[in-house]
Amino acid sequence: MRTFIPTYTMSGNEHFFEGAEKLLEIWFEETSDNRNDLRNIARCDWENVLSHVNCEIISFSKNDLIDAFVLSESSMFVSKRRWILKTCGTTTPLKCLSELIRLASLNGYNIITDLFYSRKNFIRPEAQVAPHKGFTEEVSYLDTLFPNGRSYCLGSMNLECWYLYTFSRSDMKLTGPGHITDEFLDADPDQTIEILMQNLDVNAMSVFNKKNTTSASEATSISGIDKILPSMHIDDFLFDPCGYSMNGINEKGEYMTIHITPENLFSYVSFETNVAMTNYRNLINQVINTFKPGKFIVTIFANKCSLAYETMKELEVEYSKESHWKRTDMQCCNFPSYNLLFAQYSYNGKNNCK
Amino acid sequence: MRTFIPTYTMSGNEHFFEGAEKLLEIWFEETSDNRNDLRNIARCDWENVLSHVNCEIISFSKNDLIDAFVLSESSMFVSKRRWILKTCGTTTPLKCLSELIRLASLNGYNIITDLFYSRKNFIRPEAQVAPHKGFTEEVSYLDTLFPNGRSYCLGSMNLECWYLYTFSRSDMKLTGPGHITDEFLDADPDQTIEILMQNLDVNAMSVFNKKNTTSASEATSISGIDKILPSMHIDDFLFDPCGYSMNGINEKGEYMTIHITPENLFSYVSFETNVAMTNYRNLINQVINTFKPGKFIVTIFANKCSLAYETMKELEVEYSKESHWKRTDMQCCNFPSYNLLFAQYSYNGKNNCK
Repeated sequence: MRTFIPTYTMSGNEHFFEGAEKLLEIWFEETSDNRNDLRNIARCDWENVLSHVNCEIISFSKNDLIDAFVLSESSMFVSKRRWILKTCGTTTPLKCLSELIRLASLNGYNIITDLFYSRKNFIRPEAQVAPHKGFTEEVSYLDTLFPNGRSYCLGSMNLECWYLYTFSRSDMKLTGPGHITDEFLDADPDQTIEILMQNLDVNAMSVFNKKNTTSASEATSISGIDKILPSMHIDDFLFDPCGYSMNGINEKGEYMTIHITPENLFSYVSFETNVAMTNYRNLINQVINTFKPGKFIVTIFANKCSLAYETMKELEVEYSKESHWKRTDMQCCNFPSYNLLFAQYSYNGKNNCK
Repeated sequence: MRTFIPTYTMSGNEHFFEGAEKLLEIWFEETSDNRNDLRNIARCDWENVLSHVNCEIISFSKNDLIDAFVLSESSMFVSKRRWILKTCGTTTPLKCLSELIRLASLNGYNIITDLFYSRKNFIRPEAQVAPHKGFTEEVSYLDTLFPNGRSYCLGSMNLECWYLYTFSRSDMKLTGPGHITDEFLDADPDQTIEILMQNLDVNAMSVFNKKNTTSASEATSISGIDKILPSMHIDDFLFDPCGYSMNGINEKGEYMTIHITPENLFSYVSFETNVAMTNYRNLINQVINTFKPGKFIVTIFANKCSLAYETMKELEVEYSKESHWKRTDMQCCNFPSYNLLFAQYSYNGKNNCK
């Protein structure tokens, strides 16, 4: 929490903030009663959920399809049957899961169809608190709640990597009597792209400091964030003395969210959206050109109904042709209902922006 | 070692043998002196190398292009500038690396271009000895020898998985001044397919027991192993009381190797070959039909010159159409000079062979 709680301090009084977020996304099974809606959960109940995480709501926006909360550490998005929580710093998102499941059940949702928990490796894992002190600990915690959950490590375990725990009800159904059809599995097209950036350009980051910029909307405009996905209605927040968060939502119920830790020693920017596109190459280029990282990770999830599903491999080939980026790692995974693409890039140009 | 050393015994006197092998493959840079050849290394020197691993040579075959050793635990293959060591049980292959590097250097090979160390998760990791007590320990050991090595875990870390440590000189060169061209990187087409099988059919395994079969060649013939790749010259060994190993080599310098732990409680069969094929589907089917596993892992490495490189994705799609096998996991990785496909299957048929 950039404004309300002192940032983590090393024994040597060295200032540090862990920008890398822990990301939880949970889908509940559609029910026959159309009045059921996670957005019926009251604000005070969400505040209670978030108290287990150690963060607070600092801004709120909504439209007919989605509620979007800016948090003291990152964001929460609530749709009819999908819940997303993304929190940075030393927050403990897994600790709110029991309460979240209880609240969902009270609101008519008793069955989780898909769960994704993911994060990049931390810069300072020793600063985290239980159950987030390591991925093994996080997996053990999740295994107590989800039967047949699977854990993965993409990228190089001893260098830089991205961890994923995923539970899919279709995994369980397929092993039981009677298969379910693909049509049932993939009722809604869905895709998520994340771009996790580090070693960012000092000039690009200077915008997200109150010394240089007076308001969140000014930061949004000067940086060009408002031009990345122009259809988004933006709710932005500029932290004191520095740091920036924004949620964007559009009329289709799609979202985007950006979180910026601008300090040069541990700069980090995350971009995430679920907008449907047939090809994410232009979007990736625009995000990269906006924030000018020294290195970044891209992850794309897409289910079989998604427009992105078939084009992920095209992207994989195309993007590597960008001459000033070196792809240092690339993996793809086929899960029962989703495909996942993971790629890691480092700046390799002659005129390095750093 | 099935014949010479007592198998690992649990405190409850339960008989157990870890069939899953540790696999090392090392390529050295071609030298200008064409007389340099790893096959010039003397038998007594190899015996010394293998003493660090805790295994012995029990059979030997060769042709103009490759030397093949059957070991008390699995196999070793030596070509002009490539060395492969595959050992099961509680052997310690990493402990011979320093000696291997010293011997290679004495024979004119000073530069390692590619190194691969891989293994499936052990059934009983607690029975292993240092530095093989865990993948983290193995990585730490390898990191002391290889700068910029990368470690990966394919499959689900908390269920079943396959570990890989890889070092590629091209990784280092690309980060230094001046890029090397693809032509240089991939001078020789190369591919390796491994099929690691568990929960095998009791009848198929009964052939590899001295109670039922009198000789290795009888086991090779009755099982159908000699029909998998008929061009291979086979050197086979039947252990007492049970267990089987074979090496096959052909005139192109290609190899195949099969190792069988037939005991029902911990049955394990590995198949490996580097034969060049445009599509491995028929080969996989033949291997599976020969040994009848309940579940198996396939890994395929192919460099950019390999015929397999472009067809890996085709295989990925095609094989999943086999109705009586359920693909439980699938990942692919793009490394600087190799692509890797990893897939896991479970038997899902009505007439389960188990």
